[in-house]
Amino acid sequence: MTLHPFDAAMALQPQPDGSFAGTTSADYWNMLGPYGGITAAVALQSVMQHPDRLGEPIALTVNYAAPMAAGAFEARAVAVRTNRSTQHWTVTLSQRDEQGVPQVGTTATVVTAVRRDTWSASDAQMPAAPAPQTLPRAIRPGKKVAWLDRYEIRSISGGLPSRWDGQGEHSLSELWMRDDPPRPLDFSALAALADLFFPRIWLRRATLVPVGTVSMTVYFHANAAQLAESGTGYLLGQARGQGFRHGFFDHSGLLWNAQGVLLASTHQIVYYKQ
Amino acid sequence: MTLHPFDAAMALQPQPDGSFAGTTSADYWNMLGPYGGITAAVALQSVMQHPDRLGEPIALTVNYAAPMAAGAFEARAVAVRTNRSTQHWTVTLSQRDEQGVPQVGTTATVVTAVRRDTWSASDAQMPAAPAPQTLPRAIRPGKKVAWLDRYEIRSISGGLPSRWDGQGEHSLSELWMRDDPPRPLDFSALAALADLFFPRIWLRRATLVPVGTVSMTVYFHANAAQLAESGTGYLLGQARGQGFRHGFFDHSGLLWNAQGVLLASTHQIVYYKQ
Repeated sequence: MTLHPFDAAMALQPQPDGSFAGTTSADYWNMLGPYGGITAAVALQSVMQHPDRLGEPIALTVNYAAPMAAGAFEARAVAVRTNRSTQHWTVTLSQRDEQGVPQVGTTATVVTAVRRDTWSASDAQMPAAPAPQTLPRAIRPGKKVAWLDRYEIRSISGGLPSRWDGQGEHSLSELWMRDDPPRPLDFSALAALADLFFPRIWLRRATLVPVGTVSMTVYFHANAAQLAESGTGYLLGQARGQGFRHGFFDHSGLLWNAQGVLLASTHQIVYYKQ
Repeated sequence: MTLHPFDAAMALQPQPDGSFAGTTSADYWNMLGPYGGITAAVALQSVMQHPDRLGEPIALTVNYAAPMAAGAFEARAVAVRTNRSTQHWTVTLSQRDEQGVPQVGTTATVVTAVRRDTWSASDAQMPAAPAPQTLPRAIRPGKKVAWLDRYEIRSISGGLPSRWDGQGEHSLSELWMRDDPPRPLDFSALAALADLFFPRIWLRRATLVPVGTVSMTVYFHANAAQLAESGTGYLLGQARGQGFRHGFFDHSGLLWNAQGVLLASTHQIVYYKQ
């Protein structure tokens, strides 16, 4: 049985000092480093694999301080505070520089908690959409990068501009998404999928400008059972840009499973040039 | 001249080891600890005051790991990575336990950056609203707490339920807000204002349930000059709940100045009981 590329990317080896050793994945390579979603997933995975973990992920914030180089990295998750039913983690991903000194490239915070049955509601309803199989698979512009082959994306609305003519009018996109090859959903995979929205500024301006995510947050609204029920099905993602100014824009996004259950909300702020 | 209570709460004394010493503010006291917004502001302030700071805040995430006790605390801001135009910070707020051992109660991450003039747009337009002076000042239910006197809130729509009858229907609120007494806006004050939305679940359920913010993120869309132009004027805040499940709900919010400039977007995930 072949390991799924996502599981290979999540393989973290426990070290005697409590950290984990990992290796960047060529399967999820972007232009200058790993796909940001896979870095977020690795940060979360270092908590998921930690022997001291209490409960399931509630919140994840990842700060992309520097691109990771291809090769070995160290993931260090520290349980800063453990309460009765919640736990607060700080995470760093580091790589050694030419002098062998560890340099932090990514910081993250994770909150885990024991989920309990409570009153529940969703004020963010999944939009109506045609079935994914009726929509063509989306293709990204520019240089071909490996990680795009790891996701099946079918645009519902607000897809990439057909003409890059600087005449964009809005920044709202809706799309179906899933791992390629399909893989049963779990928290780390969901964190990676939350970074799948192409940069809002490309749509808003119909112009390809250089971009890089600076910080991303994911709030998890589902438990492990609900993720398991999502199976290998498509998720519906929706994202909209909010403010674009001084070289940074943000977006706010939502992800539902095909049954219409809100699985996560996500936000990110992204650097752009010009 | 009397120091504004907010400035008194932000007073951080540099220590020889690079940390800052602060004291919790009775003026911003909530039921079991400081108002969450003031804690967020203190975390940001420890970066704003740091001699190594590069640029202005872009992103702030605050994780509320434990309530702070009244009294002294230590704020420690570390520049984990400094790039050419961006800088990544980790922050902890700690207090000593009965054995004198520092215990982290709050973790935060901050990204600062040099803002440059670029193409800009706002896809989050300020909603139309009556002038703040035409609206009554909002009053919160329950036990009176000090921090509510530090803010002037005038509800535009989605105010607190007039009847707590369990018949809530939505979670969207729009309100005018400013410091009381009025104070010229800066980044730390904006961070504090971003936590001003009353818990969405109170509106959604028309039921008062115990709540506590677990994690909050603020993205800053304005530079210092735009904050200064906001002066002591009202900000318009808008927030909407998204998912409510298993004891946690999130909201997504936006803050504009009275001139309609988007100053910040904010998100938080909140614990609720039952």
